[in-house]
Amino acid sequence: MLLEEVIQVARGEVEVDLLLKDARVVNVFSGDIHHTSVAISRTRVVGLGEYRAKRVLDLEGRYVAPGLIDSHVHIESSMVSVAEYARTVVPHGTTTVIMDPHEIANVLGLDGIRYMLESSKGNPLSVYLMVPSCVPATHLETTGATLTADDIAPLLRDKWVVGLGEMMNFPGVLFRDPHVLAKLEAAEGKRIDGHAPGLSGRDLAAYVAAGIGSDHECTTVSEALEKLRLGMYIMIREGTAARNLRDLLPLVTSKNARRCMFATDDRHPGDLIEEGHIDHLIRTAISLGLDPVTAIQMATLNPAEYFGLNDKGAVAPGRRADLIVLDNLEDFHVEMVFRGGELVAEEGSMVSEGPESFSATLRSSMNVAPLRVEDFQIRAEAKRARIIGIVPHQLTTEQVIEKPTIRNGVVVADTERDILKMAVIERHLASGRIGLGLVRGLGLKWGAIASSVAHDSHNIIVVGAADEDMLAAAEEIVRMRGGLVAVGRGKTLASLPLPIAGLMSEHSTVEVDRAMKRLLKATAEMGSTLEDPFMTLSFLALPVIPTLKLTDKGLVNVMQFKLVPLFVQ
Amino acid sequence: MLLEEVIQVARGEVEVDLLLKDARVVNVFSGDIHHTSVAISRTRVVGLGEYRAKRVLDLEGRYVAPGLIDSHVHIESSMVSVAEYARTVVPHGTTTVIMDPHEIANVLGLDGIRYMLESSKGNPLSVYLMVPSCVPATHLETTGATLTADDIAPLLRDKWVVGLGEMMNFPGVLFRDPHVLAKLEAAEGKRIDGHAPGLSGRDLAAYVAAGIGSDHECTTVSEALEKLRLGMYIMIREGTAARNLRDLLPLVTSKNARRCMFATDDRHPGDLIEEGHIDHLIRTAISLGLDPVTAIQMATLNPAEYFGLNDKGAVAPGRRADLIVLDNLEDFHVEMVFRGGELVAEEGSMVSEGPESFSATLRSSMNVAPLRVEDFQIRAEAKRARIIGIVPHQLTTEQVIEKPTIRNGVVVADTERDILKMAVIERHLASGRIGLGLVRGLGLKWGAIASSVAHDSHNIIVVGAADEDMLAAAEEIVRMRGGLVAVGRGKTLASLPLPIAGLMSEHSTVEVDRAMKRLLKATAEMGSTLEDPFMTLSFLALPVIPTLKLTDKGLVNVMQFKLVPLFVQ
Repeated sequence: MLLEEVIQVARGEVEVDLLLKDARVVNVFSGDIHHTSVAISRTRVVGLGEYRAKRVLDLEGRYVAPGLIDSHVHIESSMVSVAEYARTVVPHGTTTVIMDPHEIANVLGLDGIRYMLESSKGNPLSVYLMVPSCVPATHLETTGATLTADDIAPLLRDKWVVGLGEMMNFPGVLFRDPHVLAKLEAAEGKRIDGHAPGLSGRDLAAYVAAGIGSDHECTTVSEALEKLRLGMYIMIREGTAARNLRDLLPLVTSKNARRCMFATDDRHPGDLIEEGHIDHLIRTAISLGLDPVTAIQMATLNPAEYFGLNDKGAVAPGRRADLIVLDNLEDFHVEMVFRGGELVAEEGSMVSEGPESFSATLRSSMNVAPLRVEDFQIRAEAKRARIIGIVPHQLTTEQVIEKPTIRNGVVVADTERDILKMAVIERHLASGRIGLGLVRGLGLKWGAIASSVAHDSHNIIVVGAADEDMLAAAEEIVRMRGGLVAVGRGKTLASLPLPIAGLMSEHSTVEVDRAMKRLLKATAEMGSTLEDPFMTLSFLALPVIPTLKLTDKGLVNVMQFKLVPLFVQ
Repeated sequence: MLLEEVIQVARGEVEVDLLLKDARVVNVFSGDIHHTSVAISRTRVVGLGEYRAKRVLDLEGRYVAPGLIDSHVHIESSMVSVAEYARTVVPHGTTTVIMDPHEIANVLGLDGIRYMLESSKGNPLSVYLMVPSCVPATHLETTGATLTADDIAPLLRDKWVVGLGEMMNFPGVLFRDPHVLAKLEAAEGKRIDGHAPGLSGRDLAAYVAAGIGSDHECTTVSEALEKLRLGMYIMIREGTAARNLRDLLPLVTSKNARRCMFATDDRHPGDLIEEGHIDHLIRTAISLGLDPVTAIQMATLNPAEYFGLNDKGAVAPGRRADLIVLDNLEDFHVEMVFRGGELVAEEGSMVSEGPESFSATLRSSMNVAPLRVEDFQIRAEAKRARIIGIVPHQLTTEQVIEKPTIRNGVVVADTERDILKMAVIERHLASGRIGLGLVRGLGLKWGAIASSVAHDSHNIIVVGAADEDMLAAAEEIVRMRGGLVAVGRGKTLASLPLPIAGLMSEHSTVEVDRAMKRLLKATAEMGSTLEDPFMTLSFLALPVIPTLKLTDKGLVNVMQFKLVPLFVQ
C-alpha cells in the first residue's frame, strides 16, 4: 500500500476492507489485553477502534493475537515440502518461520537453498531464510556441496534472507579459521544464529564477541542464563528429539523475557499433527505457569525484533494483518488464522487448499554407483573390532570393542549378540565409496533398514542382518530417489519415498506420518525395541556428536575427530 | 578491533587492557545483577569473568551499568556548544545522546546541522543525529532555511544519522502534504520520531501507520497508553519547561517497559548543574518506586534497540565499553564514567578536560537590517487591539481584546495596566521586516528585554516599556551576534551572548548559568514576577501553540492558523 493510501484508510476517510469487531487484542507492546476492534485494509492492520468497513466479522469477545513465529526450524526434518509444511503449521497459528535449510544445503548446495526459497513463495506462510553456515559440517564425510563465504555472500543480500544460520563450527570461530571468519564478516549487519551446546566462560564470550546473537541448544537454566547474560537471545526449543521447554522455562522472568523466544528446530510429522507447532509450546508454557501475554510476546514481537521483521509480530497500524483468533488463552486453541488480512485457516484446517504444486524445480540428488552384494562384505582383518554402541534416547554412542562373529574370513551379523552390519554409501558423487561397520542396540532380528536422511551429509545409511537385505534396502532407496525403507524376507515391508533431495516427500504430512507409522510397525516386527530406529539411524553418521560414528569414509572417533580402523590389531 | 583480535582477546589468549574486578554488573539482558569482573580491551567489553589484565581496577563490589542514553534532546536548549554539553552531561553518566538540532536547522539549515555533526566529533560523548523534519515549522514566520526531502536525503545516509527527527507537522502527515510524505519516504528503513501532543483515535492510527515510531509529548498515562498500544515507543520526558516523569511513570509495567525510554528534550544549564541529566530521571523514577534494573534498561538497552545502536546499551562482549560505576542504585550517584574503555569522568568531574575548541566553523547567523527607533512605533488604527495574554507556567497564551493607551496617535506601553510593546525582528535575511504587538503578563515596569532564542525561527524578540530601550536591546542582541539581554535606564543591565547561531554560547555551562541568573535578577528588579521571563519570551513567537502569537510577519491567531491585524476595527 502506498503511504498516502495507508494514511487515508487509517484515518477512516474510506471504508476499511475488514473489521474484526468485539475483539480482545493481546497487545504485545503495552503488555495488556484490551477490548477493541481491529481494522484491516488489503494486507495490513490500519487501526484499532471503530471504523466503517466493507465487511464486519463479529468476534464476540474472542482474543486476537499476532500470528506466531518459529524462530528456528529445519523444514526438512518434517519430511514434507515447504508448501505442505505451510499447510500443516498455519492452522496452528504459525504465520512466519525462520528456516535454516541446513540439510538440503548439504545435499544440493546453493541449488537446494534456492529451491527452498523459491518453493517458499506463494504459500500461506512467510518463510525467511538463514543461510546455512556449515556446509559441509566436517571433512570426515562426503557431502553434496561446499559453500564458502563467497558462495553465500550474494544470498545474504536477498530480501528474504535475514542472516547466517547456526554456526555449529564453534571451534572454527574460537580458533579463527579464516573461512569461518569470512562467513561471519559476510553476514555483517544481519543476524548470526549460534549453536553452542555447553560452551561457557571465555570461549563463550569469544563466540558472542564474534557477533553470534542467539542459541537454541541450551539444556539447563544455568547454561541459558550465562548465554543470556553475555547478550545472546535464547531460543527455547521443543522439537521431536530435543525437548528443552520444561527445563528452560524457569529462566524466563519479566525482565528478561524480551530476549527469549520459541523454536521447534526439528519436528516430525506425527508431532506436528498430534501436538501442533508453536501453539503447542505456548500452551505448554502457559500450563507450566508462564504468563500468557509474555508467552505470546516470546512467539511474536521478540523474534520479529531479533530478526528485524518490523512489519510483523504485533497487531498495530502499519503491520501486516497476520493474526490469530482464540477462544481463551489457557487452552490456546487457535480458531482462526489470518495472513495478510485474509482468513487462511479455521478450526485446524486450511480454508483454501493453497497451491498444490509449485514451479521450483530440483534435480535428483541420488547419485550412487551401481551396488553389488560384495560391496557389503567385511573381510576380517583382526579378531577384535570397534562396534558402535547405541545409547537409547541419546544422540551419543559408545565405542564397544568385541570380537565379531566371523565365517569364512568375513564378518557376519550376529543377531543373538545384537551385532548388525552397517554401511554408509556415498550418494552425491557416485564415487562408489562405502564405509562399513558394526552396530549394537538396534535389535533387528532379520532384514535391513535404510535411509537417505543421515545428518549432516545425508549419505545412504543401511543396517541389516544379511548382506542381501542390505543391498535390497539400499537399492530401494536409490529407486525411490531417497527415503526410508524396511526390507526383509525378499520384499519391501514398508517405505517412505523422499524424492526431494532424499529428505522430503511430495505427499501430505498425514500420508508421511502414516508411512512412518508403517515403517515403525515393520521395524518392531523385525525385533527392534527402539521407539524410532530411523531417528537413531539418522544420527549414526553424524561425526560431530560422540563417540563412534560411521561415514562413507569409514569409522570416526569423534573425540579424536579422525578416522579409525574397524579392526583393533 | 578486527574480528580475529576480538576473539583472541575474549578467549583470554592475551592480556586484556583493563579488568574491572569485583563488580556487580547490572545486566540489562538477564534483568538481574550479578557479581563478576568486566574485561575491556581497546574500546570494547570482551568478557565477563576472570581475565589476565594489564591493569586491574578493584571496584570493591560497586555496581557497573551501561552508559546512559538520552533518547531525544535539543542541545541548543542548553545554550552551550556540543563540546561543553558533553563535558556537562558525561560526568552524570550519559555516554550517548540522540540529538535533534531542530533549532539551529531553522536558523542555518544544512550548515547548522553539519556544524552540530562536526562539532560532535572528538568529544567524550557519542552524539547521534535525527534530521530535523520541520524546517521551517510554519509559513507564518520567516525562518533562516527551508529543508526539503531532497535536502535531507543525503544526510539520512550518514552513519551518525539514525533517522528523521520529531514530525511536528502532524496535520501535514494526516492531510498527506506531498513534501511531508516525501520526507517520511526518504527516511525509510531508519527511525522516525513523533511529536503529537493529544493526537488520538484514527488520526493517531494514521500517524503511526505512516511509520512514526515514538512520542515524547505525552502528558497523561491514558494518552501514553493509547500511543503505546498502537506501537509507538514512549519517551518519558523530564526537561526544564516540560516535566512529565511523575505523571507518566504509572504507565510503565514489567511487560511494556521495553517500549519506554527517557528523554530530556530541552534542559537549561541550571537544571543540568543542579539536578543532572538522565541520572536525575532514573534517580527520580527509582524514588517513585520503579525497579532500578528496569529504570536502567529504559535508559540503555531500550534506546539502543530503538535506534539500532547494536554496540551500545549493555555490558557484554563485543559492545562498546561505555560504562558507569555506582556505589548504590537508590541514590544513583555516578562515581565513574568510562567511554570506550577509558575513564573520562570521576565524582562529577571530567578527568581530562576534553577538547577546548573544535575545528568546525560556522558563519554568523545575525543578519538584521539597520534599526531605528521609529521601527518600533505602532500607529493607532483603531481603539481596540488584540493583546497577547501570558498564562503563567504555560506555553499557551490568551487573546485579550482591550483599548491600549494611545498618545499623539501612537500606541504606548502602559506599565500600570501591564501592557508592554513587543516586536519580532526578522534576523535571517536582513529584510527589515518587523512584527509589532502588545503583551500582558510579563510585568516589566521599565526597560526592555530581548532574545534571539525564539522558537522555532529564532528571530529577535523584544518586549519593553519604551521604544528607545527596545531599540537598545535589539541592537545589543545584534552586537553580540545573538543572545539574551536586559536593558534599561540607558544601559545594559545583564546579558548572555550566544554567538553560535544566536542560540549557543562559547562559554562553559557554569558561566552560562551565572549569566542566566544575572539576567533573571535584572528582570526581577525591572518588576517581572515571572520565574523566567526569557523562557516565556522564547515561546511568544511560536505560532503552533495557541492562542495568539507574534512573528516577524505579524500577529498570528493560532486556532485559525493565520495572520490577524493588531487592531480590532
